[in-house]
Amino acid sequence: MSQNLNHAEHFAGKHVLITGGLGFIGSNLARPLVAAGAQVTIVDSLIPQYGGNLFNVDGIQDCVRVNIADVRDPHSMAYLVQEQDYLFNLAGQTSHLDSMANPHADLEINCRAQLSILEACQKHNPNVKIVFASTRQIYGKPDYLPVDEAHPLRPVDVNGINKMAGERYHILYNNVYGIRATALRLTNTYGPRMRIRDARQTFLGLWIRLIAQGRPFEVWDGQQLRDFTFVDDTVDAMLAAAMNERANGRVFNLGGERAITLKELADLLIQANGGEGRYEIRSFPPNRKPIDIGDYYADYTSISEALGWQPRVHLREGLELTLKFFRQHLEKYL
Amino acid sequence: MSQNLNHAEHFAGKHVLITGGLGFIGSNLARPLVAAGAQVTIVDSLIPQYGGNLFNVDGIQDCVRVNIADVRDPHSMAYLVQEQDYLFNLAGQTSHLDSMANPHADLEINCRAQLSILEACQKHNPNVKIVFASTRQIYGKPDYLPVDEAHPLRPVDVNGINKMAGERYHILYNNVYGIRATALRLTNTYGPRMRIRDARQTFLGLWIRLIAQGRPFEVWDGQQLRDFTFVDDTVDAMLAAAMNERANGRVFNLGGERAITLKELADLLIQANGGEGRYEIRSFPPNRKPIDIGDYYADYTSISEALGWQPRVHLREGLELTLKFFRQHLEKYL
Repeated sequence: MSQNLNHAEHFAGKHVLITGGLGFIGSNLARPLVAAGAQVTIVDSLIPQYGGNLFNVDGIQDCVRVNIADVRDPHSMAYLVQEQDYLFNLAGQTSHLDSMANPHADLEINCRAQLSILEACQKHNPNVKIVFASTRQIYGKPDYLPVDEAHPLRPVDVNGINKMAGERYHILYNNVYGIRATALRLTNTYGPRMRIRDARQTFLGLWIRLIAQGRPFEVWDGQQLRDFTFVDDTVDAMLAAAMNERANGRVFNLGGERAITLKELADLLIQANGGEGRYEIRSFPPNRKPIDIGDYYADYTSISEALGWQPRVHLREGLELTLKFFRQHLEKYL
Repeated sequence: MSQNLNHAEHFAGKHVLITGGLGFIGSNLARPLVAAGAQVTIVDSLIPQYGGNLFNVDGIQDCVRVNIADVRDPHSMAYLVQEQDYLFNLAGQTSHLDSMANPHADLEINCRAQLSILEACQKHNPNVKIVFASTRQIYGKPDYLPVDEAHPLRPVDVNGINKMAGERYHILYNNVYGIRATALRLTNTYGPRMRIRDARQTFLGLWIRLIAQGRPFEVWDGQQLRDFTFVDDTVDAMLAAAMNERANGRVFNLGGERAITLKELADLLIQANGGEGRYEIRSFPPNRKPIDIGDYYADYTSISEALGWQPRVHLREGLELTLKFFRQHLEKYL
């Protein structure tokens, strides 16, 4: 599954902590680490609506330690970071809309908890290597395409602002205290175990749920360009960032094989579903306009050059794998 | 004193709230507003070491309402923002070193309190116009000089990261909720009523104290370039930003008449002190290297074009005015 053949060797016997580890990306990351023989501890708060799901560790539940805790709790985190070789720091509030409705909760999780985690590492485990899941949202509306890491950061929602701060804390603690950290700016990630209950995290989850249920889905506008990373590719990037000292203190975009309009994506999803499914084009809701960023796709040259990463799973194939998973396990994700 | 002759007319009878109003810049801002006939309310927590000083409103204390409160207290702020026409939002933790020693306190003041203030405005006074005091610290180490507003933001301390988030919240609430806000990225501001007890906020304050006391001061390295704004010019920029609808949603650098090395500045300070005074050049302390940003000076073309602002007070003259003030009132600032 994984492009880096030396994962297994590298992570065997290592102690690895994954915050947000019952979520979509965290649980997909846990699997190759368990397979490699790592001692994996998952921290998750299982806050309803945030994406944590115990079924996500189905099949590996006896090979990981699941610790239910909230990353906002500095005491739990101070204990949990100790003696870890790697920390994959994926816990976060990721909903644009929730961040606007409740900006303080977003701040607590995406800023204050991140500071607590970094302070805990500085005090109790300065040798840990951290990989932080950042997001393309921090760019805001692109000035140019594709967007590289030098693009200005002008987030258009509270979530983007707080994630930007969270990312910078990691780089700061790398630079000032030598706590090795890499930030990956994820674009739209999709795949098995993603959150599909609603569009709180991504519209694509909702599309997948509806098509799997044989129901029509809505495409807003349809002409916007986006890029998509299959979760196995995202996981590969995280493992590569963890393994490579060259990644320390760096920030890297992830990206997709190509930019695609949402209408093309909808058509591709229907093809991946054996030709079954239908959608309706709707105009973009006026109340979403202020946080609409137009087209976005990433330039991922930087991580390609530094770590040899590139997306491997084609969109059609990734969508097929995703639909196959959800057809099998739909009721666990509703 | 003020370059905009229409201040008086504009602010007469207006309700104005100044957070951090007992501090250096806030108290200098209160004076022309009081003179213009504005109803000025000052909010300040008088946290020791933060720069608030009741002597700063000496002479206008009967013409302003001083409300001791902490901007972190959402209930006080929700009450205080009501029925204000203008909010000059200057409360903040500004020390690099304190932000590293206690990052959570910095987060509370520079992020959480800012969100609370903006939420209070959105709920209770969406027609208020806000001017936010941002800082050049959010740029970090410059890629190029002079630094314009398009320069990437890569703050090198927790304070810079949190101020960056605080600035973005203001622009976001302008863009999404129509709460008019302007952010000014201040460079080194100096003048009467600045904090001189130690170098917690700026080395220049400590220099001024020592020279006023007839003691030698230390210049680190001496070759670094910086720019300096006299506080009356800073106040003019704030008033202009408040008055101009063109400033809404904008971010502007302030700057100085020219860039100057710290050694030149030290020599100029001695000249401004009638030739009295001496300093020693010391090498830059190794433990400060990670947060050293090298040379910095701002391009302030943007605010010049939009609002007609430019620094008017020459450095020599500003230093003379500052020394004169502190010779007279030194004991109030020790």
